[in-house]
Amino acid sequence: MATGKRIVLASRPQGAPTLDNFRVETFDLPEIKEGEVGLRVIYLSLDPYMRGRMSDAKSYAAPVPVDGTMEGETIGEVTHSRHSDFKPGDMVRGRTGWCTDAVIKGDAIRHFDTHGAPLTSALGALGMPGFTAYAGMKVIGQPQEGNTVVVAAASGPVGSMVGQLARLAGARAVGIAGGADKCAYVRDELGFDAVVDHRSGTFADDLRLACPDGIDVYFENVGGHVWDAVLPLLNPYARVPVCGLVATYNGENAAGHDRLAGTMSAILRRSLRVRGFIQSEFVGEHYADFQTKIGPLVASGKIRYREDIVDGLDNAPEAFIGMLKGRNFGKLLVRVKEL
Amino acid sequence: MATGKRIVLASRPQGAPTLDNFRVETFDLPEIKEGEVGLRVIYLSLDPYMRGRMSDAKSYAAPVPVDGTMEGETIGEVTHSRHSDFKPGDMVRGRTGWCTDAVIKGDAIRHFDTHGAPLTSALGALGMPGFTAYAGMKVIGQPQEGNTVVVAAASGPVGSMVGQLARLAGARAVGIAGGADKCAYVRDELGFDAVVDHRSGTFADDLRLACPDGIDVYFENVGGHVWDAVLPLLNPYARVPVCGLVATYNGENAAGHDRLAGTMSAILRRSLRVRGFIQSEFVGEHYADFQTKIGPLVASGKIRYREDIVDGLDNAPEAFIGMLKGRNFGKLLVRVKEL
Repeated sequence: MATGKRIVLASRPQGAPTLDNFRVETFDLPEIKEGEVGLRVIYLSLDPYMRGRMSDAKSYAAPVPVDGTMEGETIGEVTHSRHSDFKPGDMVRGRTGWCTDAVIKGDAIRHFDTHGAPLTSALGALGMPGFTAYAGMKVIGQPQEGNTVVVAAASGPVGSMVGQLARLAGARAVGIAGGADKCAYVRDELGFDAVVDHRSGTFADDLRLACPDGIDVYFENVGGHVWDAVLPLLNPYARVPVCGLVATYNGENAAGHDRLAGTMSAILRRSLRVRGFIQSEFVGEHYADFQTKIGPLVASGKIRYREDIVDGLDNAPEAFIGMLKGRNFGKLLVRVKEL
Repeated sequence: MATGKRIVLASRPQGAPTLDNFRVETFDLPEIKEGEVGLRVIYLSLDPYMRGRMSDAKSYAAPVPVDGTMEGETIGEVTHSRHSDFKPGDMVRGRTGWCTDAVIKGDAIRHFDTHGAPLTSALGALGMPGFTAYAGMKVIGQPQEGNTVVVAAASGPVGSMVGQLARLAGARAVGIAGGADKCAYVRDELGFDAVVDHRSGTFADDLRLACPDGIDVYFENVGGHVWDAVLPLLNPYARVPVCGLVATYNGENAAGHDRLAGTMSAILRRSLRVRGFIQSEFVGEHYADFQTKIGPLVASGKIRYREDIVDGLDNAPEAFIGMLKGRNFGKLLVRVKEL
């Protein structure tokens, strides 16, 4: 019987996850039943939302059970197929989790089209992160010509797309990133109009100077002290799509005083629109447009992105832990097997 | 020369306003110029937003200057007119401020139609508070049949309209009010499906029991500990129109810990829509419909309301201070002069 390797949740993290919270296992691949396919996993996507799945706090999605395989989206090659839509050699995208091999229902995986862009873009700019940016901006952010759009983690897969979409809409894109290298990349390679380093001691002042006309759209994916700096700059009727709060996922975000009243007061006094969302809500209405409009722009290089690729499934936990601390530079992927 | 009486802001309050923050003055009425009218003020509306105008914190509206007349909307009778739209004896609505007599531009006042309901309804159910409820529910709350809608200050002019509009939309209305008398009124006279006393030691539990299917729309007009009780009950995709935060206006709302992360996390995890608004934003698009649809319902008694009328302009400061503490029961008005 063939075996695969997988990474399971060994225990729930208290605060920041540690390597102890993960365990590598070998498992027997089950028989492939009618309607199922066998896959060898090529790339695993690592994303901040996975921190939420490690916790059993009430959320929109059930947590990964202890001893369960860590959830995640992958690109895999079909090795065996008992589903009429797939044949060996097909490249597919699906939520197999953190594993080297999988047997999965054909109905749970999809072919994908990168319009000629590299395969990995299907997990980044042309995958869930890119669509998160697209849907959040399209439905909630609604940047207008001349608006100022601010996004943090601007070198990452969501932030980089947000800023580039803002510019395509005629808005001014201001990125927030951590460290000189990421800031230079955001400004010089992604073409943001301005970039601010959130690690600087003058961060809040720097952001204010970078936004002389205030902020019309703040795409929230970090929370924490970035929110504190953004809040006073939000213009009346500003839109705040909330897609992530990575600074708070490890429970390290509380201030010594209550910041809630200040935020609610700003929401009231400036008629702000703060809207949490998960991209899946918008797939039905907007995914096809996203593919059609954004695919060619990514393939042609008009929309740029950067990847941070780690080799080997065993290294996924360490890479994931580092990502929550901002150590990755670009979309974090694990190359599980060679193509 | 004729004189009038007015109430000015003597000093900015620190925390809860006190009588010292107000001063009664006699003033000379100016000559009525071309395009202006002279008014005797019959009713003055007292509303929580006025607390914001007493402060010089950044807001959507400029603060009342120290020594300036307190802002407010009134119903007045035209005594002199040099504007072709008005003649002596006309009843008009306008923002004359806290005063007994005014000279004002004709373009700044309006005739109004209560569809046969009492005159005072033009400052309550058929005025700014009623429209605040209508617009907030129409544009942001969007109650659907079977939804649970929660509103605090449910015996007040905004809250009472919110709950009755919810029921007209086929939703379940749950009111929050302070004290047994107000709760009985909300349940028995306004016809809410349930009511909870926020002064009870078991308030949070009571609210949970009153909302067995969670909360789909929370119309926020108080903030403070009511928000803490509401937050865990909000369903995915719940809408939160934020029209007031009266519990926080006097700066008494901070908890001993930081509640912001909990609120932002709920917004993210449950795809909440939190949207601050001022009714004026929606006047152009929705006011005519409000008048047409709601006027007859109020006039016929299908939509009910209650007023708390105080006699004499001199008593306005004390009544206003009491309102911020929930001492009024129904829409608070000052009868400035006899009709």
